[in-house]
Amino acid sequence: MSCCELCANPHPNEIWRGGGFYVIDASSESFPAYLRVVSERHVADMSDLTEDERRVLWALLMCLERAMKETLRADKLNWAQFGNMVPHLHWHLTARWRDDAYYPDSPWGSPKRAVPADVTAERLARKERLVAVLPALLDAALKQA
Amino acid sequence: MSCCELCANPHPNEIWRGGGFYVIDASSESFPAYLRVVSERHVADMSDLTEDERRVLWALLMCLERAMKETLRADKLNWAQFGNMVPHLHWHLTARWRDDAYYPDSPWGSPKRAVPADVTAERLARKERLVAVLPALLDAALKQA
Repeated sequence: MSCCELCANPHPNEIWRGGGFYVIDASSESFPAYLRVVSERHVADMSDLTEDERRVLWALLMCLERAMKETLRADKLNWAQFGNMVPHLHWHLTARWRDDAYYPDSPWGSPKRAVPADVTAERLARKERLVAVLPALLDAALKQA
Repeated sequence: MSCCELCANPHPNEIWRGGGFYVIDASSESFPAYLRVVSERHVADMSDLTEDERRVLWALLMCLERAMKETLRADKLNWAQFGNMVPHLHWHLTARWRDDAYYPDSPWGSPKRAVPADVTAERLARKERLVAVLPALLDAALKQA
């Protein structure tokens, strides 16, 4: 039995699962569109995946970047894979706007400004619309991977 | 004429160049093995690359992760691509040890401890040996991409 929090599932905010990975919605007021892609297998590094798993993972990440940029009208996508605290492979994909709470810092930086509540609400609403269409987009990306 | 600092080249710490990308050594005392992979083209996001460019980039990043983990005896590799400050696509690959200055924080977190000078010196020496063999490894990865 594993004690890893990413092995315990299903995650309450799971959006989709397939091809050995699952996607969760990790959005917050500070980062209104923040997704995580998690390996189902408990491995730490990219080089611990098989070639096939990596091909699928790249396809899923690219699908998410495209969908996030288009649906959210984000200025930039941030990608990160650390696994220092939880050594179970997972990627952070965070949509960024030039006027967001931490910009231009990374999501692991420090807040720079307050964002008007209506701006945050509008971005969270866009993210909800994104989450609604993601399963179909990820299914299609997985088929083509 | 571009004002982008990543378009200006050659970078003083450039290690290798090929396939539309270049690799620079961004190591420091806090992060004794820290490499950056930079696109030669001034594009911001992964989805701005062509399919061929992405295939090459994944191959280079995987080559670097494997070489860094093996040569450096690192505990974990951290990957990140933000581009918030410099909107020119570049990846950060940072070798991490459980007793390093920022562990378990990301490289964009805060320092946790002082690292003995001999430990840092030994890791910097390993990194130098890595840098010496990287061009041949990256040439091989590019050929197979």
